[in-house]
Amino acid sequence: PGAAGGVKYIPKMSEAEVRSVIDDLKAELEHSDRLLPGGYLFMTDLLGNPDLVNRVGKVFASAFADQQIDVIMTVATKGISIAHAIARHLNVPVVVVRRDSKVTEGSTVSINYVSGSSRRIQTMVLSKRSMKSGQRVLITDDFMKVGGTMNGMKNLLEEFDCQLAGIAVLVEAEHADETLVDDYYSLVKLHEVNEKDRTIALSEGNYFSKRGNDK
Amino acid sequence: PGAAGGVKYIPKMSEAEVRSVIDDLKAELEHSDRLLPGGYLFMTDLLGNPDLVNRVGKVFASAFADQQIDVIMTVATKGISIAHAIARHLNVPVVVVRRDSKVTEGSTVSINYVSGSSRRIQTMVLSKRSMKSGQRVLITDDFMKVGGTMNGMKNLLEEFDCQLAGIAVLVEAEHADETLVDDYYSLVKLHEVNEKDRTIALSEGNYFSKRGNDK
Repeated sequence: PGAAGGVKYIPKMSEAEVRSVIDDLKAELEHSDRLLPGGYLFMTDLLGNPDLVNRVGKVFASAFADQQIDVIMTVATKGISIAHAIARHLNVPVVVVRRDSKVTEGSTVSINYVSGSSRRIQTMVLSKRSMKSGQRVLITDDFMKVGGTMNGMKNLLEEFDCQLAGIAVLVEAEHADETLVDDYYSLVKLHEVNEKDRTIALSEGNYFSKRGNDK
Repeated sequence: PGAAGGVKYIPKMSEAEVRSVIDDLKAELEHSDRLLPGGYLFMTDLLGNPDLVNRVGKVFASAFADQQIDVIMTVATKGISIAHAIARHLNVPVVVVRRDSKVTEGSTVSINYVSGSSRRIQTMVLSKRSMKSGQRVLITDDFMKVGGTMNGMKNLLEEFDCQLAGIAVLVEAEHADETLVDDYYSLVKLHEVNEKDRTIALSEGNYFSKRGNDK
């Protein structure tokens, strides 16, 4: 049942096509001018590039083409473009979790969660009308470290009696703590950022290894 | 110069196609269950519908197909899906203005502006890396009343020495005050919301009348 109620044609990408998307991402992310104070990487331009975002969406849509996905969920703001790209290829709607409640959302469901890195209590809200119980939801975001935000969205799903169908992350970052979610796809893995030498160590994410295991 | 540096093929929509998009929007927005306290309309589901958003993007891309557009600008959160849909058809990048500064944005430019309806001073920020001076920018959002937010984005453009190429709004709302921006396209116009009778009065926006004038 697609968003438009029409026929669902989901393009599958060849391994070579997926690899070229991952290689392009890695080449872009390796530029030292992406380094931000605190070891963050500037990725906003990539998330605003419609061609790249479309290809990323197609990669993740391919991975979930054989599964029932009813909704793509992300959290405002930076994951929205990827969520829409996946949704367009799977022909399902996008729901956007927010940090704050707005009058234009109508009644909302709100949960508290612990952010992975800072261990702070944070809030996320989602319009009550966003999802129906029993729907299978694919969660996506641009970046994941410990996975606190992902875990928050997972908890929010439960409030709607929905099921987690999968997690798709553009860039995952290596870290010392235990990751709060374990069943996810990533395209790129960020190993280390050296602010002094201005170097960024990246590798391919778990996309191919996980696909191999899932088959 | 598209985002991908490739050839720019911009699809133009026939008047009948545009009219069907506007009619679908009106039919959707007329449902009384969209009424929210304070006379707002629930539109979040429409902005999360990839097929509808894609068609809206194509309508606005058609309107600006003959002009030089370098960047699509919107403000977080609800205009992002439309901005990306336009951007994909015009093959140019999207920049997202935020209410708050985040470390992942790097250095930012911040301005204050007066919101149209509440007359409150608000802030908007945009990453310094988002735009180069001289670029021609198309601004878009899901909803416009007095136009305070649009006017804020217009002022932000000036800080980047960029030029306003146009404004594209999904739904404009009738109001008593003077509109702060005058050169814009809208697809639907909201005339009146009656919370007691639970009725919503809508008409076609200015898209066709403005296109006629611009030719």
